[in-house]
Amino acid sequence: MLRTHTCGELRIKDTGKEVTLCGWLQRARDLGGMTFIDLRDRYGITQLAFNMNTNKTLCTQARELGREYVLQITGKVTERSNKNPKMLTGDIEIIVSEVKVLNKAQTPPFTIEEDTDGGDELRMKYRYLDIRREVVRRNLELRHRMALETRKYLHDQQFIEVETPVLIKSTPEGARDFMVPSRMHAGQFYALPQSPQTFKQLLMVGGLDRYFQIVKCFRDEDLRADRQPEFTQIDCEMSFVTRDDVLETFEGLAKHLFKSVKGVDHVEFNRISYQDAMRFYGTDKPDTRFGMRFEELNELTKDKGFKVFDNAELVVGICTEGCAEYSRKQLDALTEWVQRPQIGAKGLVYVKYNPDGSFKSSVDKFFKQEQLKSWADVFSARPGDLLLILAGDTDATRKALGELRLEMGRRLELRDPDMYACLWVTDFPLLEWDEETQRFYAMHHPFTSPIREDIPLLDKDPGKVRANAYDMVINGVEIGGGSIRIFDRPLQEKMFEVLGFTPKEAQNQFGFLMQAFQFGAPPHGGVAFGFDRWCALFGGSETIRDYIAFPKNNAGRDVMIDSPSPVAPEQLKELHLKLITHNS
Amino acid sequence: MLRTHTCGELRIKDTGKEVTLCGWLQRARDLGGMTFIDLRDRYGITQLAFNMNTNKTLCTQARELGREYVLQITGKVTERSNKNPKMLTGDIEIIVSEVKVLNKAQTPPFTIEEDTDGGDELRMKYRYLDIRREVVRRNLELRHRMALETRKYLHDQQFIEVETPVLIKSTPEGARDFMVPSRMHAGQFYALPQSPQTFKQLLMVGGLDRYFQIVKCFRDEDLRADRQPEFTQIDCEMSFVTRDDVLETFEGLAKHLFKSVKGVDHVEFNRISYQDAMRFYGTDKPDTRFGMRFEELNELTKDKGFKVFDNAELVVGICTEGCAEYSRKQLDALTEWVQRPQIGAKGLVYVKYNPDGSFKSSVDKFFKQEQLKSWADVFSARPGDLLLILAGDTDATRKALGELRLEMGRRLELRDPDMYACLWVTDFPLLEWDEETQRFYAMHHPFTSPIREDIPLLDKDPGKVRANAYDMVINGVEIGGGSIRIFDRPLQEKMFEVLGFTPKEAQNQFGFLMQAFQFGAPPHGGVAFGFDRWCALFGGSETIRDYIAFPKNNAGRDVMIDSPSPVAPEQLKELHLKLITHNS
Repeated sequence: MLRTHTCGELRIKDTGKEVTLCGWLQRARDLGGMTFIDLRDRYGITQLAFNMNTNKTLCTQARELGREYVLQITGKVTERSNKNPKMLTGDIEIIVSEVKVLNKAQTPPFTIEEDTDGGDELRMKYRYLDIRREVVRRNLELRHRMALETRKYLHDQQFIEVETPVLIKSTPEGARDFMVPSRMHAGQFYALPQSPQTFKQLLMVGGLDRYFQIVKCFRDEDLRADRQPEFTQIDCEMSFVTRDDVLETFEGLAKHLFKSVKGVDHVEFNRISYQDAMRFYGTDKPDTRFGMRFEELNELTKDKGFKVFDNAELVVGICTEGCAEYSRKQLDALTEWVQRPQIGAKGLVYVKYNPDGSFKSSVDKFFKQEQLKSWADVFSARPGDLLLILAGDTDATRKALGELRLEMGRRLELRDPDMYACLWVTDFPLLEWDEETQRFYAMHHPFTSPIREDIPLLDKDPGKVRANAYDMVINGVEIGGGSIRIFDRPLQEKMFEVLGFTPKEAQNQFGFLMQAFQFGAPPHGGVAFGFDRWCALFGGSETIRDYIAFPKNNAGRDVMIDSPSPVAPEQLKELHLKLITHNS
Repeated sequence: MLRTHTCGELRIKDTGKEVTLCGWLQRARDLGGMTFIDLRDRYGITQLAFNMNTNKTLCTQARELGREYVLQITGKVTERSNKNPKMLTGDIEIIVSEVKVLNKAQTPPFTIEEDTDGGDELRMKYRYLDIRREVVRRNLELRHRMALETRKYLHDQQFIEVETPVLIKSTPEGARDFMVPSRMHAGQFYALPQSPQTFKQLLMVGGLDRYFQIVKCFRDEDLRADRQPEFTQIDCEMSFVTRDDVLETFEGLAKHLFKSVKGVDHVEFNRISYQDAMRFYGTDKPDTRFGMRFEELNELTKDKGFKVFDNAELVVGICTEGCAEYSRKQLDALTEWVQRPQIGAKGLVYVKYNPDGSFKSSVDKFFKQEQLKSWADVFSARPGDLLLILAGDTDATRKALGELRLEMGRRLELRDPDMYACLWVTDFPLLEWDEETQRFYAMHHPFTSPIREDIPLLDKDPGKVRANAYDMVINGVEIGGGSIRIFDRPLQEKMFEVLGFTPKEAQNQFGFLMQAFQFGAPPHGGVAFGFDRWCALFGGSETIRDYIAFPKNNAGRDVMIDSPSPVAPEQLKELHLKLITHNS
């Protein structure tokens, strides 16, 4: 090793030792007769001291060193006169006797500090410099620890990690695949997996009993904010299980990660059906760190002459504690907020429950005090609270109120970053109707099993069929989801039929899976977690990009290596391909 | 869970318990009044017993069950009268009270037994059935354990696992890349990585200090036997290290894996230079489980009138212990063996050191007894031994003799599968001259550092420059290799120049790396191991395919899912591509 110690490990007990350190020059300070240099590596920072009086040559040399130079220094560990209690190495410094420049550095394009002056694109272009910043490095360390502890837990639960192939076959169902042209088979293509779904099911047919994999997946989507064309899943599958076995096993995983990575001991999981989640929170991934549950007021509000309510499919509100003092201006601003196109409400009705027990609302013309009181009672509201009410079509109104609820939670600081509210959302609809293509799509994927008692509905009313599917939601973030799978051929065929596949199409795309079901497939189910997102949640960030070593930008480009990029004509020719020049 | 226990865990102490098991019907035997069924899952096999006298209905039902049916059974654990000491569950059986068929099974296309009647292609097509066989399952379990222990060791050594991107940029240097057309950037392509080489170097520039990753890599090659288009590496890199630090760290990994996975306690690593490996074994990956080292006989054989030797650049042989009794027929067969085109020797000279101390050789016409004796002395041969000698151009002759040495080692059973000979081969040539293209190629890759004292030769005699590169070889199998890297821009530029890159090409393809070197790159080096191959070595097999859950065949096809395959014209259009129809 070019060093005897790292920059993070020397303590007062090491005083007197002759040591050699390697690292980057973080900062230099010239103070009259002394020069101090902070030397940084992954493990910490150690202060180096140079004395103009005792070693002029060396001190002069030190003063010529620039930021981010790579140094190898030798010297003696000495107790500091000016201790720095914020640094683990803050009790000591090195009186340097020898400096070797291992590599010079140009001035970096942004400062390598916790608060950097570098913008997003610049830091992406020089990602290798961004990674030197402690915040970014800590994110990668967190990710490493998360993966390690995930593997430890699953191994202890007798899961086997199996690598499934990356070069697979394109299936038009679902999102768009990335394609890989085959050179050896002209005109044919591999596809990159959106998930190892069919392979993990085949492993269950193969009797592997418990499988997992931390695995890259790929989706060629028009990127929305915080989506990456390649992302990582914790992918799991188990045989001979019911839904509750799966939920318990992966509650166990979450609890293990909370404890081992975050040091959080007590975490409780609640369960809520999709139907209730929509009804009480207006979303299938409610943030339950705070209450503010929806209450429906249709019964209490109808036929009182207020047309907006009378014509509405749903009248629904939330109660915000202690907000009765909101000013007219604040309430107007809130109304404008819900009317923004992203939220899409037509208007906002408020009811102030004044501290004196009286009510003031935007619909005083239509409703008497005792009627408003009866609304307040539905919410168990107290004097000082404010009711916020929306009305309109059920789905849209719930969605809008869900957004308003989150916004109010944020304003009231109820979304505590140090608190974790964990939830399983269950009983999702099996199918979603798409107006544009006039067909059903699988809400999760075509391999999800319907809930047994709903199977007869597949013929009569497919939209009503509930899936044996579940999502794990933490603090309003969907961390993962899964289902009990179909494991017999007739039901799988039925499912493809409902999804509008001809038998030939089904056979062509998924024949291998349906055939496998005929050779003794066990009942099985599983789950897949968005690993990038889970890391971001634990790291306290909302952007998964911060937890990916070399992310792509929103246009799917790697700006550091400048990819994608044109390739040589010979390469294309070998792949039996020609570019189309679009003129339209 | 649909079971209370697995099929591998019940013992005599469980006698009397009411249990529920799930699994596959492995085998059924009807013996008069009794029916026995072996129920199999991943964890083992448990015997089920049905009695015609006490429960006729159930026993009759049991007799109708077919091979590979998926069953859920309930019954009582009972001590067997006929114990089977070969099975861990062999002391007990289950007196079944209830049978539920969870899924039926068609008769499998081959028997799910240790020795199967299924051919290679058939087993690949039904790989999910092949995986049910214990031998295959054990391979996947071994692989899981290898990965787990690798991660444990490297984590303990302060390595961080970092995921590098899969969608990267094509570089024409080296093997052919798989390409991924970009839909969002017309005419542009990503490439799949042949290794994370440049990214791991950037992580070192980023100060991560110690990186590893168990990672899929891709190479679009014309497949030779036992190559896969996608394969897995244990990829590692360290900063502030010398070559010996790297070798020691990864000897440590190997020793940890030997101990934790194979239960092998004492493993020693030897080191040999590339030059010596070629000279003494005729290969850069010698199997050193046995000696049979080459000895060169040019001095002793020249100018004795035997033209074959006189005209040869090299006369070199091995001594095979106790083979003097080989018959004429055996020696003729050996001569034919070395003359096969794969070996390519012109002929074979033998010298028998007879038990009586006399010599008999195929060149008795040219050499006297005492001359033959002097050859034998070079090998420290003893009566009863046989010398086998080849002559010709140095490289080709060494290579041929290397093959002959392996063959003789095999015949003499010196290649003991339970013995492990570990070796680092060092000081590889930096460059290889290619006659066809009349240029140098990097023997490892263009980022490998030359040995410091050889750097001046880069201008004068590039072919002579040794690389600071090393391979790990176990039992003649190259398990991995690596090098100390170039970490400054001028040397990297020089290297690209020697490889025939114009400055513009170098900048275009590797500009980001060379730029990174200017911002304070630390000295660094690393290694990458072929994970599939290491698993195969530990599993005692020569085919990596046995250690991959879903391998591709020699034509790069996945015959199970039938991939690659044609895609819809719309998919191609979205990718701005058109197929070329070749008529030539």
